[in-house]
Amino acid sequence: MERFMIIGERIHCISPTIRKALEERNPEPILKRAKEQIDAGAHYIDFNIGPAERDGEELMTWGVKLLQEHFDNVPIALDTANKKAIEAGLKVYNREKGKPIINSADAGPRFDLLDLAAEYDAIAIGLCAKEGIPRDNDERMAYCTQILERAMELGMDPEDILFDPLCLVIKGMQEKQMEVLEAIRMMTEMGLKTTGGLSNVSNGAPKHIRPILDSAFVAMAMANGFSSAIINPCDEQLMNTIKSCDVIRGNILYADSYLEL
Amino acid sequence: MERFMIIGERIHCISPTIRKALEERNPEPILKRAKEQIDAGAHYIDFNIGPAERDGEELMTWGVKLLQEHFDNVPIALDTANKKAIEAGLKVYNREKGKPIINSADAGPRFDLLDLAAEYDAIAIGLCAKEGIPRDNDERMAYCTQILERAMELGMDPEDILFDPLCLVIKGMQEKQMEVLEAIRMMTEMGLKTTGGLSNVSNGAPKHIRPILDSAFVAMAMANGFSSAIINPCDEQLMNTIKSCDVIRGNILYADSYLEL
Repeated sequence: MERFMIIGERIHCISPTIRKALEERNPEPILKRAKEQIDAGAHYIDFNIGPAERDGEELMTWGVKLLQEHFDNVPIALDTANKKAIEAGLKVYNREKGKPIINSADAGPRFDLLDLAAEYDAIAIGLCAKEGIPRDNDERMAYCTQILERAMELGMDPEDILFDPLCLVIKGMQEKQMEVLEAIRMMTEMGLKTTGGLSNVSNGAPKHIRPILDSAFVAMAMANGFSSAIINPCDEQLMNTIKSCDVIRGNILYADSYLEL
Repeated sequence: MERFMIIGERIHCISPTIRKALEERNPEPILKRAKEQIDAGAHYIDFNIGPAERDGEELMTWGVKLLQEHFDNVPIALDTANKKAIEAGLKVYNREKGKPIINSADAGPRFDLLDLAAEYDAIAIGLCAKEGIPRDNDERMAYCTQILERAMELGMDPEDILFDPLCLVIKGMQEKQMEVLEAIRMMTEMGLKTTGGLSNVSNGAPKHIRPILDSAFVAMAMANGFSSAIINPCDEQLMNTIKSCDVIRGNILYADSYLEL
């Protein structure tokens, strides 16, 4: 199995600091968060500009170039609902260190982002949802299959889809957690790669509890084959957990110093 | 699913303090460690007196009475290879708070501890091993079946066997970890309860890494249905992980204060 892949989530327009930096095209706060995440072990940097309906194309182009120029062509997850903005980002993306990720296609209104992924030889996150939260795993797996079939029709390699079962908040949807974990197992048994927005899980929980809940969930997901996640790589407990699970899965060779590597 | 069951491992003759206290029949260090473990959330206290060939019967009798008298008939795991000592302990055991656990029967020289479990209506840990470490899961599951069949012949309820896949040390047997986790899943799918000596996993690792490795492993095991473990309940990170996995499995109702409960 490959090593667990970490997509750093901290450049997100929901953060007031980042939102302001995006509006003002101010590189400093963005580069600072990118560096922190790369130093902490992120493999991909998610660049989330929100809906970006007004100036998405120009903003995505600016961000992709900014990050890749400063960090040796670091691979990026292009994160917006604006398809034109994604395409603009793909056009300037340098794939020397890895293909771009499109975050994210789904089985509903964003289904056609798969076309873009196929056209540009990109990786697509395939959110197994259509409108709102899937009712159960039958629905989840139906969306998974739909996305997989479309991607294959388009000539994509199934390895280039990261299926996202849609991680749900424990505080409010506690009874759904095992279902999400089970979906990850089913996808893994189908030979598919998986990902998910891990911080959904502990949303609304007290700050000191979030790393503990997220760590427990990611380890359980990794037992079921989870292959990547969109996380805060600056959460040390979470990163230590992921490394440890990678050791247990045999993806990292054990050494007493494995946490420092 | 039932809440994960914690068997506290800290009264063990391998500890010099405990060994001395056992030899001298000095209650204080034993009661101290029992209290710490009960306060930390242990459901059972393991009382490990080693081979105890000389005075095992008297020693086990003394220990069981000591612990149960001081801690409101706390349930105990009677832990020794000395069958007569186990029997002596069973004779004085008060089952008001739970059946005694025999730690442990196996598919080899300790197979007949199952007879004792059946005779005294005790729970038996069934170590899925015969001589040394099982070669693979075929062997592990063969021992599991052998123990299960014998227990059922003896009229035991399968719920009263805690099947132990034999947790192995990462440092040295890294490539065996997923196999152990898979065995736990297979046993769970057979409807069986499981347990294991979790600290085996991180044996020999640096002290600061052990809670991290143990926590990662237990969460992965709990994703596969792991139902109890023999652990150090005073390891806060490990206990927080177990509680969080219990929340995710729906065995504990989520509340912001769940870690304090």
